[in-house]
Amino acid sequence: MADINSPLEIGVTTGPIRGSKKIHVPVPGKPDIKVAMREITLEASAKEPPVRVYDTSGAYTDTTVAIDIAAGLAPLRRDWILARGDVEAYDARPAKPEDNGQLGPDRSGGVPPFPKLVTHPLRARAGANVSQMHYARKGIITAEMEYVAVRENLGRAALKEKLARDGQDWGASIPDYVTAEFVREELARGRAIIPNNINHPESEPMAIGRNFLVKINANIGNSAVASDVAAEVDKMVWSIRHGADTVMDLSTGRNIHDTREWIIRNSPVPIGTVPIYQALEKVGGIAEDLTWEIFRDTLIEQAEQGVDYFTIHAGVRLPYIPLTAKRVTGIVSRGGSIMAKWCLAHHKESFLYEHFDDITEIMKAYDIAYSLGDGLRPGSIADANDEAQFAELYTLGELTKRAWEHDVQVMIEGPGHVPMHKIKENMDKQLAVCGEAPFYTLGPLVTDIAPGYDHITSGIGAAMIGWFGTAMLCYVTPKEHLGLPDRDDVKVGVVTYKLAAHAADLAKGHPAAKLRDDALSRARFDFRWRDQFNLSLDPDTAEQYHDQTLPAEGAKTAHFCSMCGPKFCSMKITQEVRDFAAKQNAAIETFVAAEDAEKGMEEMSAKYREAGDLYIPAAE
Amino acid sequence: MADINSPLEIGVTTGPIRGSKKIHVPVPGKPDIKVAMREITLEASAKEPPVRVYDTSGAYTDTTVAIDIAAGLAPLRRDWILARGDVEAYDARPAKPEDNGQLGPDRSGGVPPFPKLVTHPLRARAGANVSQMHYARKGIITAEMEYVAVRENLGRAALKEKLARDGQDWGASIPDYVTAEFVREELARGRAIIPNNINHPESEPMAIGRNFLVKINANIGNSAVASDVAAEVDKMVWSIRHGADTVMDLSTGRNIHDTREWIIRNSPVPIGTVPIYQALEKVGGIAEDLTWEIFRDTLIEQAEQGVDYFTIHAGVRLPYIPLTAKRVTGIVSRGGSIMAKWCLAHHKESFLYEHFDDITEIMKAYDIAYSLGDGLRPGSIADANDEAQFAELYTLGELTKRAWEHDVQVMIEGPGHVPMHKIKENMDKQLAVCGEAPFYTLGPLVTDIAPGYDHITSGIGAAMIGWFGTAMLCYVTPKEHLGLPDRDDVKVGVVTYKLAAHAADLAKGHPAAKLRDDALSRARFDFRWRDQFNLSLDPDTAEQYHDQTLPAEGAKTAHFCSMCGPKFCSMKITQEVRDFAAKQNAAIETFVAAEDAEKGMEEMSAKYREAGDLYIPAAE
Repeated sequence: MADINSPLEIGVTTGPIRGSKKIHVPVPGKPDIKVAMREITLEASAKEPPVRVYDTSGAYTDTTVAIDIAAGLAPLRRDWILARGDVEAYDARPAKPEDNGQLGPDRSGGVPPFPKLVTHPLRARAGANVSQMHYARKGIITAEMEYVAVRENLGRAALKEKLARDGQDWGASIPDYVTAEFVREELARGRAIIPNNINHPESEPMAIGRNFLVKINANIGNSAVASDVAAEVDKMVWSIRHGADTVMDLSTGRNIHDTREWIIRNSPVPIGTVPIYQALEKVGGIAEDLTWEIFRDTLIEQAEQGVDYFTIHAGVRLPYIPLTAKRVTGIVSRGGSIMAKWCLAHHKESFLYEHFDDITEIMKAYDIAYSLGDGLRPGSIADANDEAQFAELYTLGELTKRAWEHDVQVMIEGPGHVPMHKIKENMDKQLAVCGEAPFYTLGPLVTDIAPGYDHITSGIGAAMIGWFGTAMLCYVTPKEHLGLPDRDDVKVGVVTYKLAAHAADLAKGHPAAKLRDDALSRARFDFRWRDQFNLSLDPDTAEQYHDQTLPAEGAKTAHFCSMCGPKFCSMKITQEVRDFAAKQNAAIETFVAAEDAEKGMEEMSAKYREAGDLYIPAAE
Repeated sequence: MADINSPLEIGVTTGPIRGSKKIHVPVPGKPDIKVAMREITLEASAKEPPVRVYDTSGAYTDTTVAIDIAAGLAPLRRDWILARGDVEAYDARPAKPEDNGQLGPDRSGGVPPFPKLVTHPLRARAGANVSQMHYARKGIITAEMEYVAVRENLGRAALKEKLARDGQDWGASIPDYVTAEFVREELARGRAIIPNNINHPESEPMAIGRNFLVKINANIGNSAVASDVAAEVDKMVWSIRHGADTVMDLSTGRNIHDTREWIIRNSPVPIGTVPIYQALEKVGGIAEDLTWEIFRDTLIEQAEQGVDYFTIHAGVRLPYIPLTAKRVTGIVSRGGSIMAKWCLAHHKESFLYEHFDDITEIMKAYDIAYSLGDGLRPGSIADANDEAQFAELYTLGELTKRAWEHDVQVMIEGPGHVPMHKIKENMDKQLAVCGEAPFYTLGPLVTDIAPGYDHITSGIGAAMIGWFGTAMLCYVTPKEHLGLPDRDDVKVGVVTYKLAAHAADLAKGHPAAKLRDDALSRARFDFRWRDQFNLSLDPDTAEQYHDQTLPAEGAKTAHFCSMCGPKFCSMKITQEVRDFAAKQNAAIETFVAAEDAEKGMEEMSAKYREAGDLYIPAAE
């Protein structure tokens, strides 16, 4: 661990993503608001425009920005926040030894504090409410909402004509085109949130909601056993480079406060935390010693640093705890088990539940979103959809409405471990009970028998529940249940969840989702290998795999791959079939005549069965 | 490549799978038929019996068997086949130069022929039909059916009482207990197949059908660009070690005949091929030069070697070919594109379609199962569920019925690339059109944008379509679309598909599937790390991931992991909660009283909402 007196060496990956460049698209009518996107340029032979994709990577992939981790990112949203005239700066809560795991005044063995500490954080003026939901309900379209609208549209506006809707949205209301007014409406009715603490002005606004693109979260965080702050900042940058929409800092060891400061100041995506983890550290790990006062103080500490959403396990109520006693895996949520232990030890209702409205007052003063934790989520297939889980969900629904009374943004955390046939019930119940507040699930894993592959067991469940309506998918890495994820695990987890989220967008019929699939498939068919790599979620891995068999530079333009070899390529043969068909007589073409295309499948298939007769042989 | 005059060095992985031992369970009443299974022994502290799992690994994991690749495996089924008295041995078709890619008489540059060549293969006597379907329809229960019944049951018999059915089977008819008579009935009505060529007596009988465990296939095979026979035999053994139920040899380069012989003689699982690949090699790669005679000769060649199922693309009919012209990715099936080219070049209906009944005559003489190929499957999201695809499916349905008229076993190949919302339509149409013949799909991939991760994009679709009723899932490796899979890719592909197939079994409510999940989850909760590793699909990877953070031997029994560290483990806290709850007063226990457990969720949740009142505080 670095010494506090030596400079902290933090290396992160910067530079453009292969084949892409960062662009900034101005908001129509508001040219000072520029939305970051990524543009993938295709080979000239494609004769296609560049493909714009959603970009979460921040300034790290922008060649025009000099990155200085010790200084943090530029405060994109600062002026927007101040311009609303409803905040005040004040003296920050002084850092305490217990914030960093009881380090002494010299902080020996700790990490250095972030050099540019915020000494005067912002909060809402007395009586004000700075949540995006509050503005939305007052009919105000904020700059954040404008930003989100352009960001969600990507190339949809230009391609509007071409887009045929195709999907099963299970009752979602995805618009053809996202307007800022649509964003406002979704926020106002609680169907979407924009998590962005006014003390995290470095963040680029993003929306989490069923009628927007499905988002993913990456968890990072040191633990008592391994890792250090440099590795965590690196993991944050690495995860957003591959597409993480938000990052949760789940640190549980020492240096929690300082680690978080380094992460937030350098993060262009919203940061979430589970404040009870730090509160527990402050009482030496003894759950029974937790108090509302210590917890409240921790919320203020993290609110001032700029945490964008808090996981609050206020649904773990005393009477539900015995419902877990006969489970195969009991309570697997860390937050849930802490609160369960506290409730039983004191024989009292949870202080999070009792003080929920007090927490809400803090949330609205900083615009922090609730992520209502599912402390009783199932930790195994055996425990899925049981009474404990759903009892808590009903309470989360109740709390959602209480938070909404104060215009505070809410999303709901969900499981966990759920076999495929029980996934939809989770989504349907959540929508019904929580008034369509965004659902944010961990997977779910669809079987317990594949430790080492739980990014996949959970990616299956994530794609399905995303399709059914979950707004954000919390990633799972290959190390789940086994160890602390390293950099490679983070990447594999993020890419797996990006593909699951994208599969969900496709199946929901998101109007622009298919553009990227189609562009990649055309590149594949045309043997534009570089375009195929660059359009993929992980260009480096795609190219590396290709080169393992065919490393020669010429193979990048070769009209074959190592799967079939040069003589045997079906893509090549298909092109020959096309060329051949084009030269053939018109008899064949009658099969695809426009009128046939409009006839139903049944009629067509009857024709096919008679095809021997219909087909007119060419003259010899 | 090895010289023909030097001995072929083939190394394969042998020895027991970690934590497991091979057992042989006798068929009740037929003690000479012994069914191979794997038994995972748990730590003494578990106080649980060993967990029996389905085992595809053959003699390679049996410490009592000496493996000699040059001699091949013991012919388990030879006596069963001969005892039926309906076969005859005859002089094998002589090997021809074109069988191995036009090698000269000295076969220079080729691989050595398998040392123990079968000079007198078996075939049905004139007028006889040796297919399992034929026996089944005559009411005969064969040894193969007996074997399958015991194999599918695993530990179900002993645990019968405990098994509560829980699942959504979409109309499948999975029995509580599999009898040999049930196997016979499923074969007779074509809902399941046992692919086992009478010239592959080394194979251990297995069933592919919607009412049995979902199976997976691994593709191997050299190509014109890379690999050699030793690597392919190694991959075969490696893939069955991890759970592949069948293996397809998709070799397309030289040495096709000899490579296949080495593979079949050493394979305890059914081997499938696509005979058109070899036929094309025989005509120098020129599709137009293919003839029925060359194809027929290739079928006989492979039938004599013991191939258990043939992919036959007889559904690619001339009139359907133009339907693919406007696709984004045309025809992506190699077999499909070869036949399309042939049809267009000759302006004739496919010779596979025209000679279908002639092919069927060969199939029934050796008991080879049809795997009716989907030559027009979609190769991209854009092309999913289109007219070309379904036109071919209708023809496959027609051909299924024609094969069944001769009691020949059939399964149907399916896509491919399909977004999630279009997957179920594939399954439903296939069941309706093909009379419930087993469906055998390649994935499907649910998005095109993740080359390098297509084991995952396809694993999502595979789990879903397996749940909906697909009987066998053809694996996809991380190298799909990019290169030839190596040993590591094969393992990742197999494990991914095993977990997808298992997730499907769970969701279908397969009565015994959950036993392994529950055993693993109990081990996880009890911190029995070794049991957790051993019960997983890939014990080596699970342990390796764990050890990356906590390599010390003591950590294997530690009551924490590196995710949370020793102070913070939710599993540990839950145990404390349980202990605490057990000591607490009876008031809490009333919440889980037996009568409550039987009340509906609605009523319970009403109670939970009133929980503050219901809860009786303990006396101070």
